[in-house]
Amino acid sequence: MVDISKLLSRRTKRMKASEIRELLKYASVPGVISFGGGLPNPETFPVDGLVGITEKVLRERGKSALQYGTTEGADVLREAIAKRMVEKRGMKVDKNNIAIMSGSQQALDLLAKIFIEPGRTAIVEAPTYLAALSAFRPYEGEMLGVKMDEEGMDTELLEKTMKKLREDGKIAPFIYTIPTFQNPSGVTMSLERRKHLLEIAESFDVFVVEDDPYGELRYAGEDIPTLKALDRDGRVIYFGTISKIMAPGLRTGWVIADKEVVWKFVIAKQATDLCTNTLAQHIIAEAFDSGLVERHIPEIKKLYSHKRDLMLDMLEDKMPEGVTWTKPEGGMFLWVWVPERVNTMKMFPRAIENGIAYVIGEAFYPDRSVTNAMRLNFTYSSDEEIKEGTDRLAKTIKEFL
Amino acid sequence: MVDISKLLSRRTKRMKASEIRELLKYASVPGVISFGGGLPNPETFPVDGLVGITEKVLRERGKSALQYGTTEGADVLREAIAKRMVEKRGMKVDKNNIAIMSGSQQALDLLAKIFIEPGRTAIVEAPTYLAALSAFRPYEGEMLGVKMDEEGMDTELLEKTMKKLREDGKIAPFIYTIPTFQNPSGVTMSLERRKHLLEIAESFDVFVVEDDPYGELRYAGEDIPTLKALDRDGRVIYFGTISKIMAPGLRTGWVIADKEVVWKFVIAKQATDLCTNTLAQHIIAEAFDSGLVERHIPEIKKLYSHKRDLMLDMLEDKMPEGVTWTKPEGGMFLWVWVPERVNTMKMFPRAIENGIAYVIGEAFYPDRSVTNAMRLNFTYSSDEEIKEGTDRLAKTIKEFL
Repeated sequence: MVDISKLLSRRTKRMKASEIRELLKYASVPGVISFGGGLPNPETFPVDGLVGITEKVLRERGKSALQYGTTEGADVLREAIAKRMVEKRGMKVDKNNIAIMSGSQQALDLLAKIFIEPGRTAIVEAPTYLAALSAFRPYEGEMLGVKMDEEGMDTELLEKTMKKLREDGKIAPFIYTIPTFQNPSGVTMSLERRKHLLEIAESFDVFVVEDDPYGELRYAGEDIPTLKALDRDGRVIYFGTISKIMAPGLRTGWVIADKEVVWKFVIAKQATDLCTNTLAQHIIAEAFDSGLVERHIPEIKKLYSHKRDLMLDMLEDKMPEGVTWTKPEGGMFLWVWVPERVNTMKMFPRAIENGIAYVIGEAFYPDRSVTNAMRLNFTYSSDEEIKEGTDRLAKTIKEFL
Repeated sequence: MVDISKLLSRRTKRMKASEIRELLKYASVPGVISFGGGLPNPETFPVDGLVGITEKVLRERGKSALQYGTTEGADVLREAIAKRMVEKRGMKVDKNNIAIMSGSQQALDLLAKIFIEPGRTAIVEAPTYLAALSAFRPYEGEMLGVKMDEEGMDTELLEKTMKKLREDGKIAPFIYTIPTFQNPSGVTMSLERRKHLLEIAESFDVFVVEDDPYGELRYAGEDIPTLKALDRDGRVIYFGTISKIMAPGLRTGWVIADKEVVWKFVIAKQATDLCTNTLAQHIIAEAFDSGLVERHIPEIKKLYSHKRDLMLDMLEDKMPEGVTWTKPEGGMFLWVWVPERVNTMKMFPRAIENGIAYVIGEAFYPDRSVTNAMRLNFTYSSDEEIKEGTDRLAKTIKEFL
């Protein structure tokens, strides 16, 4: 046996298995209802539509759809995405602003690879997407969370944070946000905050990274412009994905940015996996062009909207006093606060005994400073499970009050 | 505009666009015949077979084939690969030794991410696979090439190199080799050298990384055991891929190693892209299980074997004295040496004028120390192009003698 420990890089020692994955092993115990996962509901996958599209793609352009492609992605897909982003997300972009990624997770990895190194700071929301923290961590920078409230990231606090970093001579190359139906909190950043965020980024001359996997899944309220739509000087790097509007198994996402920035992602990606799955890219381009995605999104929204309403009703009915939660206008997640004396990590084993799983709130904070919260997914479980699961969760919390 | 230069990480400044890609822009000039690419011949893609398989996969298990999968990969595929590697490549492995990658390029990236850091050395063959150099470079170690001859890496030289590194207090965590039908040289490492390499790795307690994309494409001679088949103590990390035996657009490869090592790749991959395209994994598993791959490989070999013979005949006919080349028993590439006074980089613009493209030899050396060589691909061009292209190449070389 090789003595591997002396051969691992420092950065490998910073890597760890996803906490969600580890915790959710318990959730696979028979009978446990899980609000912990982040999977789209497979009922929403347009399997029939994809059968026809895939056959068409293979028959009409099989030789190119099965060949290596360029690192920046297939032109048909980049054009379809540019068109969609102009129409649906208010951007002024063309295909040259777009690089296709192997899921937007790859965009997160490359973002850190391109900008983070020892001594640098990645600014994130607190709480933030867990797998963004995992992607950033190996590149050996610091991660600093800026607290959120019901309007999204507290930009006053952000400004103070940026000033402090500058005083300390530290470089924070980007501010990472999921402004719309955030994972994990379900919160959407207000227009005022969006504008303030962009002003701050401009004044400190850093990038804003807008991760937008859920933006098209709105069930209530009015659309708010994307940060990218408000971007005046190529400062916003936008990440999109097909995972939540069609199927995550196709592992396809995209970066939209100034051409010079796109090129950095392309060079970094080239050494990483040469190109994204070409067959998937052609399937998705055809799914956009044929209208399949367009026809399909309302069905997803209908299902998820119903499930959101049901979970909100159930929480209202069942939760004891002192427990509060967000009311997301879209997306897949909501956030529950329990009284400060309740530690959701310590409560977790009992929850599993009671047949209910969630993700502990502290996993979403880079400094793990918040211990009385949890993330719930409302899109995956059946109606029956949502009813029974909220009941079990309420019961568990009551045991700890 | 953001001033990006002050925000880039050190490692980004080490990245550069693939030299092949840049050079081959010239090759897209109309009328230029290119021996420079590394693409499989699309005539070999089993399009019809894949139409049926894809429909079957989507209809029978669409909901899981379109969902996120586990980071280590779909069990059906890991089992199919384990079975095949036991039968075809002489290994003693099961699915727990296997992690699925988004192409073996991803395995190269993660290898460096896991083991290389400033101060460390990656040992490679000289020449070696260009995109391995690109994958290793951003992790800020050194790359040290060990010269090859007609039996593969010179293991006497390797031993001296390892001793020198140890004396200097340097860690070289792995020795990277493409032992069978190497890219770029076409050379296959002899059994004796393979055994010697493993002895050296054992005595210095480091890993051997066996990259084996071409191993099943043998057109002449006898099979030699893989390093992984000769591995006694989990020291060999093996990379395989579907790209050269079915279709590269599916972007699927695999790492085979000791379970502890596999787990490091899984953790590193999780933060990088969560999982490999699930649909592709199910398609490939079905292609293995149904016998499509098995029936298909002889057809690839027949086509490529013919093209290899043709190119070797043409080189024999046309090349001036002083030019030599390797006679690969398999794979996709051969290596041409020209007299030392000819610099293939300086010759390149003239070659393009004459309507022929190749890849300059120096790109394959970490220290760029060899200037009188080139790589030729013999599998992509039509027979007519092989005849005409070797003629143009011979003419160009004669102009420089």
